[in-house]
Amino acid sequence: MKIRAGIIGAAGYTGGELIRLLLLHPNVEIAFVQSNSNAGNKVYAVHTDLFGETELTFSKEHSTDVDVLFLCGGHGAAIQFLNENNLPDSVLVIDLSHDFRLETNNTLANRTFTYGLPELNRDTIKQSKSIANPGCFATCIQLALLPLAKAGLLNNAVHINATTGSTGAGQSLTNTTHFSWRSANASTYKVFSHQHISEIKQSLKQLQPQATDEVLFIPQRGNFTRGIFATAYTQLNIEQAELETIYQNYYAAHPFVKVVPFAVDVKQVVNTNRCFINIESITGQVVITSAIDNLLKGASGQAVQNMNLALGLPETTGLNLKPSAF
Amino acid sequence: MKIRAGIIGAAGYTGGELIRLLLLHPNVEIAFVQSNSNAGNKVYAVHTDLFGETELTFSKEHSTDVDVLFLCGGHGAAIQFLNENNLPDSVLVIDLSHDFRLETNNTLANRTFTYGLPELNRDTIKQSKSIANPGCFATCIQLALLPLAKAGLLNNAVHINATTGSTGAGQSLTNTTHFSWRSANASTYKVFSHQHISEIKQSLKQLQPQATDEVLFIPQRGNFTRGIFATAYTQLNIEQAELETIYQNYYAAHPFVKVVPFAVDVKQVVNTNRCFINIESITGQVVITSAIDNLLKGASGQAVQNMNLALGLPETTGLNLKPSAF
Amino acid sequence: MKIRAGIIGAAGYTGGELIRLLLLHPNVEIAFVQSNSNAGNKVYAVHTDLFGETELTFSKEHSTDVDVLFLCGGHGAAIQFLNENNLPDSVLVIDLSHDFRLETNNTLANRTFTYGLPELNRDTIKQSKSIANPGCFATCIQLALLPLAKAGLLNNAVHINATTGSTGAGQSLTNTTHFSWRSANASTYKVFSHQHISEIKQSLKQLQPQATDEVLFIPQRGNFTRGIFATAYTQLNIEQAELETIYQNYYAAHPFVKVVPFAVDVKQVVNTNRCFINIESITGQVVITSAIDNLLKGASGQAVQNMNLALGLPETTGLNLKPSAF
Amino acid sequence: MKIRAGIIGAAGYTGGELIRLLLLHPNVEIAFVQSNSNAGNKVYAVHTDLFGETELTFSKEHSTDVDVLFLCGGHGAAIQFLNENNLPDSVLVIDLSHDFRLETNNTLANRTFTYGLPELNRDTIKQSKSIANPGCFATCIQLALLPLAKAGLLNNAVHINATTGSTGAGQSLTNTTHFSWRSANASTYKVFSHQHISEIKQSLKQLQPQATDEVLFIPQRGNFTRGIFATAYTQLNIEQAELETIYQNYYAAHPFVKVVPFAVDVKQVVNTNRCFINIESITGQVVITSAIDNLLKGASGQAVQNMNLALGLPETTGLNLKPSAF
Repeated sequence: MKIRAGIIGAAGYTGGELIRLLLLHPNVEIAFVQSNSNAGNKVYAVHTDLFGETELTFSKEHSTDVDVLFLCGGHGAAIQFLNENNLPDSVLVIDLSHDFRLETNNTLANRTFTYGLPELNRDTIKQSKSIANPGCFATCIQLALLPLAKAGLLNNAVHINATTGSTGAGQSLTNTTHFSWRSANASTYKVFSHQHISEIKQSLKQLQPQATDEVLFIPQRGNFTRGIFATAYTQLNIEQAELETIYQNYYAAHPFVKVVPFAVDVKQVVNTNRCFINIESITGQVVITSAIDNLLKGASGQAVQNMNLALGLPETTGLNLKPSAF
Repeated sequence: MKIRAGIIGAAGYTGGELIRLLLLHPNVEIAFVQSNSNAGNKVYAVHTDLFGETELTFSKEHSTDVDVLFLCGGHGAAIQFLNENNLPDSVLVIDLSHDFRLETNNTLANRTFTYGLPELNRDTIKQSKSIANPGCFATCIQLALLPLAKAGLLNNAVHINATTGSTGAGQSLTNTTHFSWRSANASTYKVFSHQHISEIKQSLKQLQPQATDEVLFIPQRGNFTRGIFATAYTQLNIEQAELETIYQNYYAAHPFVKVVPFAVDVKQVVNTNRCFINIESITGQVVITSAIDNLLKGASGQAVQNMNLALGLPETTGLNLKPSAF
Repeated sequence: MKIRAGIIGAAGYTGGELIRLLLLHPNVEIAFVQSNSNAGNKVYAVHTDLFGETELTFSKEHSTDVDVLFLCGGHGAAIQFLNENNLPDSVLVIDLSHDFRLETNNTLANRTFTYGLPELNRDTIKQSKSIANPGCFATCIQLALLPLAKAGLLNNAVHINATTGSTGAGQSLTNTTHFSWRSANASTYKVFSHQHISEIKQSLKQLQPQATDEVLFIPQRGNFTRGIFATAYTQLNIEQAELETIYQNYYAAHPFVKVVPFAVDVKQVVNTNRCFINIESITGQVVITSAIDNLLKGASGQAVQNMNLALGLPETTGLNLKPSAF
Repeated sequence: MKIRAGIIGAAGYTGGELIRLLLLHPNVEIAFVQSNSNAGNKVYAVHTDLFGETELTFSKEHSTDVDVLFLCGGHGAAIQFLNENNLPDSVLVIDLSHDFRLETNNTLANRTFTYGLPELNRDTIKQSKSIANPGCFATCIQLALLPLAKAGLLNNAVHINATTGSTGAGQSLTNTTHFSWRSANASTYKVFSHQHISEIKQSLKQLQPQATDEVLFIPQRGNFTRGIFATAYTQLNIEQAELETIYQNYYAAHPFVKVVPFAVDVKQVVNTNRCFINIESITGQVVITSAIDNLLKGASGQAVQNMNLALGLPETTGLNLKPSAF
């Protein structure tokens, strides 16, 4: 019998990616796709690439007769949804917003959310019925830094610069998602104040309670649609070989993260659920470069990975995706 | 004494280009820049690249104490403006919309508009106080075809495919100007029904009254911001040398159009007021490739060219622009 | 027992795509990947996205102990390979070059190649041991036109404009694949003389022997990496409903081709093996828009589709790919 | 009488930009354009956008009968050129390579080169006959940091991330300038070891001899052709108002650098000789964002600016360029 999945807010980018993934997932059937803005429309009327793949129609209403419910409704919408709806405890809830990512604020009624980064919390996720899916920048940056935290080595300021594809901003039309502006352009925003910094710090301190508080992050808007490319560095004297051992060991049992022996670029991971990481010890600094697909490992792919774990499936089920490469 | 210029609707793309051009024009001073949406804002608050170049502020009101008035308010706005405002006959009006481009509909009150394509109507433009600036697609395509019409050779169907940069769609936010959609994409719209076809036919028949009525035009949305790239062909047996003579003669006295002996690409003309044309006689067909910058020769640059002509200045004044080339 | 596959010329773009597809194909194991230029290197040293997916190394030599051999060595290389090597008759050979696509020239020694367009020749492909994989432009354009030929309706000139992504030009470095030139650019090449025109005409005449000889095709270089976007039209008076019936019937049993009721854009099919087609009857012309991924349905995906057919597997095996969509 | 200018190595990107600029410069005539690779070819055969603008032909030989000689031959070529040719002392030499940028190595025979950053060394440049034009990254980053150095405030490590357009890598064909790779991609190179770091440190210490030696610079390859976008920050407690005063005062007399009150993006300065800088004091850090066009203020535009200064012309002559803006 297949897992029954429902998606709330399924007409957006992360909802669309979930539908694409779940249609190909061998153990899942999509029970419903809910959307306020597109109720009554065919899925392929919005996600046109899915024409011929599904006859699903967006519904105004949702059902709770599902095994897993994905909340893709944007920040704030998850709290509202859980407040307004009485979900059976047995339903696995995976929220893609930031509503429940911070431990200071991860409980609503009888649900306490687990921070759903499998490379940090896999065992807890396996036992959880409420999962807060991490942010896209937060995923890429944490995967770059967690092994250092585990080794207790994050004792100096961490300097981060990360560039996101335009789909990270969602499908709403804004000045900074206008093609005429964004094409061939580069810019920053929310310097040192991006909301994902809190998630990142929380995870680092989970592994290294005395880790530095100086996490200096400059987000950049990239001139591409998919992907996050991050560089991070911190002052640390360590041999390259030791560094590699730390990272290799940390990720040995994690199928989606690869410590690679060549320069990372973002297209190596686009349209996959993978994270590529390169590490270098350079004149007293450790430099980490990492890349993910913001909509997959940074959102919907990770949500499916979490679902797999929480429902007892192999972690990679439905996530062996052909890279687009170009 | 300088020419005093006013711009109505100056916060849009064509308004911005006009400001950029006129600030560098040796014979012009900008009297005012009017905008409903941005009245009270500095020009550089909208056209940020102009910071430090001008302290002009958008005004709600306009003045008629000018030598030339550019109407950049969008289609329909020119008719409304002229209906609501009493302009002295002495003011040169250059309308960038399609309101007055067709001879069947080019008169309002005491003003009859000249179709402002200098390579077709230069002498008339010099005598005119009311100029309808051609459309961007229309300019690129007419420049490709006019010499054939002049030679009476447009006797068979004309097949046109032209791709436009995103700035041709203006600065409004739409699904097809969203970066996440348009980046790395290709698509068509208004197949055989684009509004510029009427202008094109009108001009062709001006030179060759019996010219074909079959002008089959497929417009494409391009994955770039500036430029129009057009291909056109028609059945015609003609020697290459004769064809070149026809085109070279037609454009000999027109400084912005170049018949080039190599393959045309759109970046050859981006950020200039020029049109590059390549012609080939291939197995019974004449194939013409042409390229312009949609915001310059296709809009604001041509408007300045028309102003120069109508006010007795050398045609190229203020329009010798460094190509961006890349 | 798995199908054993070998790839000759596996370090190029189409070779890389084949590796990506076959690694995920449930019925195939890759026996070897041959490359002259990269013999001795790991596959992931060239196709870096495959790090962690395979430990395969490019070999100088090849084996004939395989079930299927893909020839990805470029035009001319297949003839040379077959001349120099004695292949058992039992080995299925799929050649991705144009060496054997034309019936006038499709035989070498004991092998006669079937033109491998499944939507045209599926039954023959199922019986064949030698398959000439169609060209990318040729695939996209034929799929747009075949139903009309089948219905005997291609009686007037066909006008085609198609734009290709840069990967269509392969990985060799040329002036027209230089980023500084190609980015934000548009251009044509081989106007009316592209080598794929012969394939297209051959297939059209296979279905409609008296089909028009006037196939006027303008190829364009696109400012994107993956995809082909084609428009085609021909003079024909037909009701829209009848037209749709013709196309729906033609493709009813073909899983990868979809006649869609909305405007086609190239990103709808990128990273899939599908072809989307839109048809419109407009004022006496039938206009067809079609899009494929040039490396998948236009090359390696179609090669796997052909392998599936020739080896008795379901046609879609290993080809249900998540669209990249953005 | 016009200034006579010669260009050595004029077929490359910086040579092409110089030709574009000098053709529009009111006080200059181009005496010759030398190129080894293209001797005998028309300028427009290489820089195709210049068709119709000049009939100049690349020459194998050069002349010393000029007022100014621009060396665009790439790194190492300037030393070789000066060793092999005997230039009159009166000829102004402007070298665009890094051969003479460092004071430790800025002398050859009777020529000692001035580091040609006008915003640092304007008075010296005015007296100089030998000018080493700064690097593109170096220009963008120095302009971001010089006011702090002048104020003696660079006492802590400086963290820099800067992204360059593809034209910064020149016109040679490489894997990282291949469109299929670079399009929609992001990557780093020469982390902490880029050759421009030396220039930057030299200039900072010129203004603040005890300035920090920790200049940590991560260069990124951008998915655009023109422009450099840099972020820099250093630990420093300072009021925003005081910071602005420092920057405004520093650049008050420098026409091409603008301290702007809004977020900087790279397209604000593309196709101009300007640098836009934004400064923010954020929680104990000073953050500077700066942008230039790498081929203009980062290369050929700055070379003309230096020529103007050294030959007694107004600094901005020939450099009032229309921004491309999009």
